[in-house]
Amino acid sequence: MKFIADIKVMPLKELLDPQGKAVMGGLKNLQFNSFKNIRIGKHIQMEVEANSAPEASAQVQAACKKLLANPVMEYFEFSLSAV
Amino acid sequence: MKFIADIKVMPLKELLDPQGKAVMGGLKNLQFNSFKNIRIGKHIQMEVEANSAPEASAQVQAACKKLLANPVMEYFEFSLSAV
Repeated sequence: MKFIADIKVMPLKELLDPQGKAVMGGLKNLQFNSFKNIRIGKHIQMEVEANSAPEASAQVQAACKKLLANPVMEYFEFSLSAV
Repeated sequence: MKFIADIKVMPLKELLDPQGKAVMGGLKNLQFNSFKNIRIGKHIQMEVEANSAPEASAQVQAACKKLLANPVMEYFEFSLSAV
């Protein structure tokens, strides 16, 4: 079975996010004043080939832990949908 | 009212995504062979202060068009949830 995994990798809430602060400044310069607490992370989309949803989920989790997210600075969340 | 906007900015499907290709190579080196078509984009999360959901949605859309996404290379999608 083929699944699409949507993974979100964001900076931990406890840490400053300088990229988010910079974008906030940019939005303020463009007269957007209603935005607050901007945080910027990565979004990763991929196809996963697996026999079942739990197997696909385990593989994505392992890949996130080993390569895609740096647990010292980031957390990840993902969702799977069958194709 | 306060809303949380979750914005996903991804490279257009027609374009190559060298960052995705590199991550694919990294995953292969770690013996993950069940992943395909990896694409990497940005995930932006922010708080929006607005009177109604349609107003918040219009603001986020304008911010994406003006600053957050580059329409030549990227498309964006977002979801809003009230807090």
